[in-house]
Amino acid sequence: MTVMRNANRRFVLRARPTGRPGAEHFAEETVSVLQPEAGEVLLETLYVSIDPAMRVWIDDKPSYAPPVGIGEVMRAFGIARVLESRAAGLAAGDLVMARPGWQSHPTMAAEEVEKLDASLGSPEDWLGLIGMTGLTAYFGLREVGAVRPGETVLVSGAAGAVGQVVAQIGKIEACRVVGIAGGAEKCRYLVDDLGLDAAIDYKAEVDLAAAIRRACPGGVDVFFDNVGGPTLDAALANLRLHARVVICGRISQTAAETLYGVTGLGQLIGTRARIQGLLVSDYTARFAEGRTWLAAQRDAGRLRQRLHVLEGLEQAPAGLGMLFRGENMGKLAVRVAR
Amino acid sequence: MTVMRNANRRFVLRARPTGRPGAEHFAEETVSVLQPEAGEVLLETLYVSIDPAMRVWIDDKPSYAPPVGIGEVMRAFGIARVLESRAAGLAAGDLVMARPGWQSHPTMAAEEVEKLDASLGSPEDWLGLIGMTGLTAYFGLREVGAVRPGETVLVSGAAGAVGQVVAQIGKIEACRVVGIAGGAEKCRYLVDDLGLDAAIDYKAEVDLAAAIRRACPGGVDVFFDNVGGPTLDAALANLRLHARVVICGRISQTAAETLYGVTGLGQLIGTRARIQGLLVSDYTARFAEGRTWLAAQRDAGRLRQRLHVLEGLEQAPAGLGMLFRGENMGKLAVRVAR
Repeated sequence: MTVMRNANRRFVLRARPTGRPGAEHFAEETVSVLQPEAGEVLLETLYVSIDPAMRVWIDDKPSYAPPVGIGEVMRAFGIARVLESRAAGLAAGDLVMARPGWQSHPTMAAEEVEKLDASLGSPEDWLGLIGMTGLTAYFGLREVGAVRPGETVLVSGAAGAVGQVVAQIGKIEACRVVGIAGGAEKCRYLVDDLGLDAAIDYKAEVDLAAAIRRACPGGVDVFFDNVGGPTLDAALANLRLHARVVICGRISQTAAETLYGVTGLGQLIGTRARIQGLLVSDYTARFAEGRTWLAAQRDAGRLRQRLHVLEGLEQAPAGLGMLFRGENMGKLAVRVAR
Repeated sequence: MTVMRNANRRFVLRARPTGRPGAEHFAEETVSVLQPEAGEVLLETLYVSIDPAMRVWIDDKPSYAPPVGIGEVMRAFGIARVLESRAAGLAAGDLVMARPGWQSHPTMAAEEVEKLDASLGSPEDWLGLIGMTGLTAYFGLREVGAVRPGETVLVSGAAGAVGQVVAQIGKIEACRVVGIAGGAEKCRYLVDDLGLDAAIDYKAEVDLAAAIRRACPGGVDVFFDNVGGPTLDAALANLRLHARVVICGRISQTAAETLYGVTGLGQLIGTRARIQGLLVSDYTARFAEGRTWLAAQRDAGRLRQRLHVLEGLEQAPAGLGMLFRGENMGKLAVRVAR
């Protein structure tokens, strides 16, 4: 490899958090940009996505992805522009989806990036609505959740990245949709802006199970769970016969030092409900189908997203912690360059 | 109704237990037999089945079946002989499956009994192997568990009524089968008599998850759970990609005064495993298929059952408690008459 003069600003993992992640767990570095070799591209990162799963990636535990090592660049999905290409099919100026990590100018193998179809959406759309976030909602609710018209869909983390898309897809699928979120502003967004049938402010409820029962008097057919812990137990107490619970995330537990024990699994026998985990990468072969559907719904005015954008890569380390305090409204991302 | 001279001996619910059930929660009564009216049959009970679900039926909580009321005859599945019939299609001497409850001479509506095909099996077979027990194992492992040849099947409560049948079906389906049971005698039964690949004596293990890992080094594809609680958590830690967990029962929790909290549901995301509840009545339309298969496997010498028989209806109240102390070996039943 040869080294160019230009700088690649990046954040590496300094220490593994035991609970919630913060800026203190990452260290900034400035290194020289690596000139791309044959089959590689040099990128300028536009956005990095801030996702709850990133907390899992920095645990030193076996998971679906290997842990980020101490001193390694923090892993992150994002959108980037090709600055220089030595790979067929990619040219300077192309926009790509990739895992640039928390760095401004990564050099990556061409296989690790996917050229965007800019006619399908803006970089912001590719970051969320028609990107991994939207696809997670689409395949999660339709395939794992097996949602049918007229059913009652309950979504936790409903004002978050995936939750807001799931909630809208539920309405498109002619369901009654109830969201759970923290705080009056998020709940107003869900009902007034996204058209949900009801929103439950879990911070204002002493008995979440009772609040769900009031909002879903006939019970819940699909519970799309981004939160886990006590929220899952409250939903389990309200399942209908043959209900489906989609475990997309469990942000209440992801950074918890003590895990909550779920006591309501006995409900599964009487209801013959199922609980199933979701990882969008299982549907890679069908991503084009999902993106076409999502873009068409957006064009029809039935689907949109709220992005919560932090300005500057230096916001990323503290930004990750915001997720676990519920401080984001919509999908959280860091704008690295315009 | 007219009243006959003959006596119907029965046990009614005296008080609802808060934890494990015992003889003190039931009261014996002797009442006159009710002469059958048009459309009814008078039965002589041969066997009543003693099942963990019966503990659920005596809780005053909403469930898939209404609770048994105080002073009402204890509900139970069983096998009976028709003594007198005033219903078409049923004659004195016919053997039937029914829910006679804990009574020696119930009078029931003809719709509430199902005539047995004695050519398919003995009363003992109809009680277990080709009755509700065998059908629960058959549909649970094949439909909810979606088991495939070559997979690894883990069964808890493996020396119990349903567990012993599930374990053998797993072997018939060309799976590696590992059972979990309490005590060396049960484990020997599983390996030496039923041909399981391994049996784990949970009472002899400090770390059940580690014991499962040793017995299932490649992980578990199907976990058929009759036990719940910490056993479920230990299995969740050992699931393979796309594993299926069948929640048939959870005897560790059914009579528990404090529920265990399951902490391992996060495993579902990485493995995209599913957990699903099972109730055999969902498959009523396919019972004939299941019975034919089970009887054929029995005839081929690949499937058998161990019955743990208590003699006399007076054993029923204390017998129910045996389930929750793991004192039964195989399917527990009470012989009421020969």
